[in-house]
Amino acid sequence: MRKVYSLQIQYPEQTREFNSRLTKTGRRSLSHSISQSSTDSNSSGDSDTENLEDEVSPRDMLQINSKGNRDFCVKNIKLADYGRREIELAEDEMIALMTLRKSAQGEKPLAGAKIVGCTHVTAQTAVLLETLMVLGAQCRWAACNIYSTQDEVAAALAEQDFPVFAWKGESEDDFWWCIDHCVNVEDWEPNMILDDGGDMTHWIYKKYPHLFKKVKGIVEESITGIHRLHHLNKAGKLCVPAINVNDSVTKQKFDNLYCCRESILDSLKKTADVMFGGKQVAICGYGEVGKGCSAALKAMGSVVYVTEIDPICALQACMDGLRLAKLGDVVSQVDIVITCTGNKNVVVREHMDLMKNGCIVCNMGRSNTEIDVTSLRTPELAWQHVRAKVDHIIWPDGKRIVLLAEGRVLNLSSSTVPICVLSITATAQALALIELFNAPEGRYKQDVYLLPKKLDEYVASLHLQTFDAHLTELTDDQAKYMGLNKYGPFKPSFYRY
Amino acid sequence: MRKVYSLQIQYPEQTREFNSRLTKTGRRSLSHSISQSSTDSNSSGDSDTENLEDEVSPRDMLQINSKGNRDFCVKNIKLADYGRREIELAEDEMIALMTLRKSAQGEKPLAGAKIVGCTHVTAQTAVLLETLMVLGAQCRWAACNIYSTQDEVAAALAEQDFPVFAWKGESEDDFWWCIDHCVNVEDWEPNMILDDGGDMTHWIYKKYPHLFKKVKGIVEESITGIHRLHHLNKAGKLCVPAINVNDSVTKQKFDNLYCCRESILDSLKKTADVMFGGKQVAICGYGEVGKGCSAALKAMGSVVYVTEIDPICALQACMDGLRLAKLGDVVSQVDIVITCTGNKNVVVREHMDLMKNGCIVCNMGRSNTEIDVTSLRTPELAWQHVRAKVDHIIWPDGKRIVLLAEGRVLNLSSSTVPICVLSITATAQALALIELFNAPEGRYKQDVYLLPKKLDEYVASLHLQTFDAHLTELTDDQAKYMGLNKYGPFKPSFYRY
Amino acid sequence: MRKVYSLQIQYPEQTREFNSRLTKTGRRSLSHSISQSSTDSNSSGDSDTENLEDEVSPRDMLQINSKGNRDFCVKNIKLADYGRREIELAEDEMIALMTLRKSAQGEKPLAGAKIVGCTHVTAQTAVLLETLMVLGAQCRWAACNIYSTQDEVAAALAEQDFPVFAWKGESEDDFWWCIDHCVNVEDWEPNMILDDGGDMTHWIYKKYPHLFKKVKGIVEESITGIHRLHHLNKAGKLCVPAINVNDSVTKQKFDNLYCCRESILDSLKKTADVMFGGKQVAICGYGEVGKGCSAALKAMGSVVYVTEIDPICALQACMDGLRLAKLGDVVSQVDIVITCTGNKNVVVREHMDLMKNGCIVCNMGRSNTEIDVTSLRTPELAWQHVRAKVDHIIWPDGKRIVLLAEGRVLNLSSSTVPICVLSITATAQALALIELFNAPEGRYKQDVYLLPKKLDEYVASLHLQTFDAHLTELTDDQAKYMGLNKYGPFKPSFYRY
Amino acid sequence: MRKVYSLQIQYPEQTREFNSRLTKTGRRSLSHSISQSSTDSNSSGDSDTENLEDEVSPRDMLQINSKGNRDFCVKNIKLADYGRREIELAEDEMIALMTLRKSAQGEKPLAGAKIVGCTHVTAQTAVLLETLMVLGAQCRWAACNIYSTQDEVAAALAEQDFPVFAWKGESEDDFWWCIDHCVNVEDWEPNMILDDGGDMTHWIYKKYPHLFKKVKGIVEESITGIHRLHHLNKAGKLCVPAINVNDSVTKQKFDNLYCCRESILDSLKKTADVMFGGKQVAICGYGEVGKGCSAALKAMGSVVYVTEIDPICALQACMDGLRLAKLGDVVSQVDIVITCTGNKNVVVREHMDLMKNGCIVCNMGRSNTEIDVTSLRTPELAWQHVRAKVDHIIWPDGKRIVLLAEGRVLNLSSSTVPICVLSITATAQALALIELFNAPEGRYKQDVYLLPKKLDEYVASLHLQTFDAHLTELTDDQAKYMGLNKYGPFKPSFYRY
Repeated sequence: MRKVYSLQIQYPEQTREFNSRLTKTGRRSLSHSISQSSTDSNSSGDSDTENLEDEVSPRDMLQINSKGNRDFCVKNIKLADYGRREIELAEDEMIALMTLRKSAQGEKPLAGAKIVGCTHVTAQTAVLLETLMVLGAQCRWAACNIYSTQDEVAAALAEQDFPVFAWKGESEDDFWWCIDHCVNVEDWEPNMILDDGGDMTHWIYKKYPHLFKKVKGIVEESITGIHRLHHLNKAGKLCVPAINVNDSVTKQKFDNLYCCRESILDSLKKTADVMFGGKQVAICGYGEVGKGCSAALKAMGSVVYVTEIDPICALQACMDGLRLAKLGDVVSQVDIVITCTGNKNVVVREHMDLMKNGCIVCNMGRSNTEIDVTSLRTPELAWQHVRAKVDHIIWPDGKRIVLLAEGRVLNLSSSTVPICVLSITATAQALALIELFNAPEGRYKQDVYLLPKKLDEYVASLHLQTFDAHLTELTDDQAKYMGLNKYGPFKPSFYRY
Repeated sequence: MRKVYSLQIQYPEQTREFNSRLTKTGRRSLSHSISQSSTDSNSSGDSDTENLEDEVSPRDMLQINSKGNRDFCVKNIKLADYGRREIELAEDEMIALMTLRKSAQGEKPLAGAKIVGCTHVTAQTAVLLETLMVLGAQCRWAACNIYSTQDEVAAALAEQDFPVFAWKGESEDDFWWCIDHCVNVEDWEPNMILDDGGDMTHWIYKKYPHLFKKVKGIVEESITGIHRLHHLNKAGKLCVPAINVNDSVTKQKFDNLYCCRESILDSLKKTADVMFGGKQVAICGYGEVGKGCSAALKAMGSVVYVTEIDPICALQACMDGLRLAKLGDVVSQVDIVITCTGNKNVVVREHMDLMKNGCIVCNMGRSNTEIDVTSLRTPELAWQHVRAKVDHIIWPDGKRIVLLAEGRVLNLSSSTVPICVLSITATAQALALIELFNAPEGRYKQDVYLLPKKLDEYVASLHLQTFDAHLTELTDDQAKYMGLNKYGPFKPSFYRY
Repeated sequence: MRKVYSLQIQYPEQTREFNSRLTKTGRRSLSHSISQSSTDSNSSGDSDTENLEDEVSPRDMLQINSKGNRDFCVKNIKLADYGRREIELAEDEMIALMTLRKSAQGEKPLAGAKIVGCTHVTAQTAVLLETLMVLGAQCRWAACNIYSTQDEVAAALAEQDFPVFAWKGESEDDFWWCIDHCVNVEDWEPNMILDDGGDMTHWIYKKYPHLFKKVKGIVEESITGIHRLHHLNKAGKLCVPAINVNDSVTKQKFDNLYCCRESILDSLKKTADVMFGGKQVAICGYGEVGKGCSAALKAMGSVVYVTEIDPICALQACMDGLRLAKLGDVVSQVDIVITCTGNKNVVVREHMDLMKNGCIVCNMGRSNTEIDVTSLRTPELAWQHVRAKVDHIIWPDGKRIVLLAEGRVLNLSSSTVPICVLSITATAQALALIELFNAPEGRYKQDVYLLPKKLDEYVASLHLQTFDAHLTELTDDQAKYMGLNKYGPFKPSFYRY
Repeated sequence: MRKVYSLQIQYPEQTREFNSRLTKTGRRSLSHSISQSSTDSNSSGDSDTENLEDEVSPRDMLQINSKGNRDFCVKNIKLADYGRREIELAEDEMIALMTLRKSAQGEKPLAGAKIVGCTHVTAQTAVLLETLMVLGAQCRWAACNIYSTQDEVAAALAEQDFPVFAWKGESEDDFWWCIDHCVNVEDWEPNMILDDGGDMTHWIYKKYPHLFKKVKGIVEESITGIHRLHHLNKAGKLCVPAINVNDSVTKQKFDNLYCCRESILDSLKKTADVMFGGKQVAICGYGEVGKGCSAALKAMGSVVYVTEIDPICALQACMDGLRLAKLGDVVSQVDIVITCTGNKNVVVREHMDLMKNGCIVCNMGRSNTEIDVTSLRTPELAWQHVRAKVDHIIWPDGKRIVLLAEGRVLNLSSSTVPICVLSITATAQALALIELFNAPEGRYKQDVYLLPKKLDEYVASLHLQTFDAHLTELTDDQAKYMGLNKYGPFKPSFYRY
């Protein structure tokens, strides 16, 4: 990880974006892809970068596939067979995309689309990319993260003549070189952008702004990318429509509420190996993440206290059977403190001074600022690294607190992104591309749009088969009575689900 | 209840409104007020109207209180002492309003306000009305429902010189006469309207439209009233701002999700006296009501199947551990069917023909159309009235299904509105009145507004003390970091809670 | 109820038994039978005894059925048709007995059995009695409770020539007269006894001890009856084997854990009409009843504190996510206190002095001694009867606590016995009779036995069909591997379930 | 692991014991101790035995501690400091033992006790051993498992002059040599035995039977050891009393119900990385293990089906809201199958042929026979080892099922024994030793006893402080009313908890 931070020093104007781009899904996809390609899903990611420096850069290798095609750049084209098997396994899991592929392949809704993309390059992404091709698109692709590429998957794509420029362990320079090779091509101009973090968009703005004349739209997946688009928009510089797939209902509920409900348990077991029954837990924040964590721990027999600043969420916590308290009032009695606020300095030194021996402290929110870890780096406190992601901070009187992941977001490093979240995201990306590419003139202006509710509902419906779930269809009569289109959208935009 | 329906025939232009005005809270408040004044909370409401016809109308009685004041019309002023005790008990329960009263009484934010109101006249309402007065308002009041008035409470208000015109068992003519006596007064013109169902607003539009020149705003509580206001607005006839307190987050979550979670159990026990453990239940619809019912029944050991038309809600049901099915596929195996869709003909004869012996069918949605009860009124089926709210429908082969409340909304008649819902509503009404009365010129136009989020949050915060809940306050630093005002609002408008 | 207590004075030697005979199931069956025969299941039982004194005693009436048979004594033989319908409805619910009836009717395992019984005489009992007859038995029957008889059911039995001696509102003298008419018959001597409370057994011991020579065994259902049998046994006077059906696993788990899980909610709603969400509740005792109450309230969003004396149960409470506290430490903050200990003075005046305004106090245990109600009958406290089962006790400073059922067991009076408990009990009684009647010489000695585990398992298996539950059968190979008989029993006697 | 099996061949008479000695806790303690001493708790245990053969045997090393003492045999005495830190950390977690140490150290209840022990030698055990010494005992110790010793802990004990003979990677010969060195000592004869697996007991019976004359009792922890004692007892050869601490309530509930509730989630995440929400799961067996697994998965949003042979447990599953089915009827629709029966061939090839693509199969029961893995070793099925504990079995049509831990007990290898289980066991062992050593003549005969309920309750009470749980004490009056001793035992022996 050190590499990333040093990059920030070299390119100061990129610092903030590069740092914050390591958002929830980004980092977790990273560890997920690693688990896929390794023999042990629990191996620590700490040593991933070992020995990378010694190797010959793919840019200096001969790149040619079995058909003689050279328009790609990957680590080792010989990994193609292994990568193909990984992709085939992923196809089994990405049922929604495979269904979409089948149902729309005759129609070819992306015929004529020329998509440049910059996302994680994993087996799951490969299923998306090959779906886009089946639907008629031409694509060129780079990685959005210098560590997250599954080299065997990139090889498998390249072997199929898919122009992919990505490998695990890119340098900063490699990173932009790959992006540039997607865009800067003779006789080929993209008309759609699929981005995760906004770097592809940024690069085109900076180097090839003329390309935007033909671009029909941008689909952006990450929070960071969305912020950058909003920033552009505010500055009046957004010149094409963009769809934000990050804030769709399906994505939000899955990535936050439902996934955190599971990953908090997983993460705590893998790091602190704690028994939940009878434990007293303080959960700071009762948004979707806090609701997920609370539900899981309560279900496992913990006694949960919640802290909140928002009285509405606070009232929900009460109705859900949780005691609402100020952290200072319960911190001396709890066994675990979990931050889920998105705020900073939620747990400060004063709180940690009050904690009892053995108290576990961790962060499930979005930043690394929720726990004031800096306040623990003082001479009177001893740090003891116990195992991966686990440090003991030892007070002069011998009291220890157990700090997980050094206060960084716990489940990003200690749990994996469930396939269903990846599948929901990929499906939403495909549908958003189709929507923007085919939308009649005037439907979308130069603005950032949420995924239209009808598409959000379609994403959901494509995932129901996984659960052997059978949807009811409105009769004509019922649809009329409700004033609804029989095929949706079924709810007003402000509906809270 | 027959009376209400006959009224619809006499006043055809009022029919729809009068019928639909018996909305969720409306009808439930009715039974709640009855339970308050009777010795048995479980007595059936069926006989409430008995003997009402024989009595002398309050309009023909001498109306005078102990101070000589005659500006009111109630059933029996002598009930004032009893009513005062009821109000005092209600004050214990309406802690939010009492807190508001205390905190704002110095300020008198309603000084100068002249409010005409038309709501249920119950002990809880009385606490609201006396709060409005403490805050500086002058008021005149009528009942929004011909049966729901607690006569002793009306008497207690009248004894305190509060101009109230309301009694239990009004005729249709009485109903409008009472409303008229609130508005049509010499030397007094209202400048605020608090309405529940829209009848007061309707009457002023029809009879005294000139009064709207001075009216600063309307606060409306019911779905029906909101519909009528939107109708006016669309027609370009809404000439003052209106605040919709029905769709506030606090109201919606409490009245639907949390209350239904409890009232489904209560209602089923009181009517069908069924054991929940091990029962198979089909719940049609997974909105807030369906979510509440499912959570409760699952928690009590039932096996729950959900039907949905909306794939997003369907996916939520899956993630919540419920099997999503079509009704036709499970109806022959379930023990209970509960409709929560708001739609019509959700359970039809074909389904009921498939049900097994003893299957219970009921409706927790918003209309009486979800179960096609008409289809059961055929010669080959025998109806057996077993007890209040319970009918057996007997098939030729002896199979019985148990129909509750004749397919009308079950918890309206078989459960009571929890005090906290009444309290939340009343507090929101008071805050909305204060907001509209004090808003600077231009903040509100001639439109229907949701309760501003900040007020919604304030309503919530006033109810936290009931739960001994302690809210955390943002530090200045944290507020800045989050880009929030330290005192809210804390969430964007589209936040889903 | 006053009547019962006065009886105790007249027959001092019976006092204890008569009083304690009003055990859990006994009293609840009473209210259940009432609900069956009335039009409103929620009517208070308070007025049941009204006008009973005025009527002509059945003993003085002409008793003759349509076939000319006179060997019975009921209130009104003309009610037979109505009673038959009640029995038919009950047959739908008593599926286990009906299955037993079908499967064993060819075999007639009770051919030659002459059973005298003394139980509640309700529709459910009638299904048992007619099952015994189908299986070959002759029976004579009396009621075990002076108020619990459903007269229409007794009439229906009598109309079928079943010798039943029972009516609602018997005097103490009637009670023993009825029992005597079952036993003291010319040319007929019982060889089996089915008892609920031990009065039949007691009467035979006292008046006709010689009959025991032919009696093959006693089946006893109630705690009181079991105590009396153990007493006899200790004194060396038990001269036949007896089976205790009260302590079977099926009975205990259903009557305590599962039923209390439901009836606590039902009872609190019906009496105090309280919302559970966010309420703080102290539950005293974490046995089966406390576990059931806690599970239900936690599931409905209450915050639950548990008090315990037994550290093992205390540890279970911890692991189930409940805070274990002393009552004195939490009593000032909770909204509801529920006793489930079986002990006395668990909630004392000192506790109640600390309670906050509006706190609800009730008892779900087995006695009326858990709450020290006597300590509340002091001059400085005012009692206000609010509605059936609800009293407000008012402190000098205006604080009120809400006492339910005057401290008597809450769900006995405010909830009904679920059919499945009645069905489990009745099935166990039938199987126990068959077992004792057919047991080879020497299998049972003069002692009190638990229901053999194999029969307990059979009772359970007969109830599985209600839940559409499909049991797996051991293969021969598996049975051998486990060292089990393929058809049970499947567990050692000490198994904890 | 191969080593163990080869040992069985060399010493056939030991085969069964050696194999079955790898019982639940045994094997799990093993992985737990590894996680303690490694830097990553998730490292696979597969490579533990690497390189062990090359090393010099501790038996051939010079064994001497800093004080010159030579009466021990460990891998490396220099690890003592590190081991001491491990023990100190364990002391923080073994609060019950530390409390016992404090409360009984004045009394020295084990003064005069000479204990030989054979258990896992881990930091937690060290806390037990040093507690025994504080309480007055002399001890000599060997390891009960050839791989489970934490060498640094053994070193720390040796450094304190504790005669310990144990190292990680003992040979079979070493194993018995160590045991022998505990027993076969000049001028020292043991009078108590603490055993885990029965090997120490076995050795003394075989080699030094005369020692039993002075032995006051045996405390045995494992199922295997208990079986061996019962076997001896049946054969009339048990010549001292023994206490079975394995079947105490505290142990059983914690090790099965509560731990499995957590470890099933942990194990499935670590191996199959599956999302639980919406998954359909078949759980075979509804004993304590099945109840724990079901509760956890239901709570996490899975739809759970249960299979059972015992109708009582089946009825419990129904009341807990789970569908009871035969495996064959649901196996084609479920996503996960978990066996918890203790039986064999519960999942057979026929079931696996019906499973859908991606179905996960695993075993949480006690043996490796529940899933018929042998039936999968046929030519038409391909096995693909995906990662540690995960194999894909691939059908000719491409269908894969995911087999975890090759059908061996999943949580033994993929989860750790919670400290609380270790603590409960160690506390029970200490109390059992004290009880046997101090029991008055005649209290215990030559038989195998359960831990007396009073001690079981005491074990529980010593663990309550971990949960900040406050027990209520009976008043004298209450104790008398209940017929209980004020300090327990509080329940009859057959109480089901």
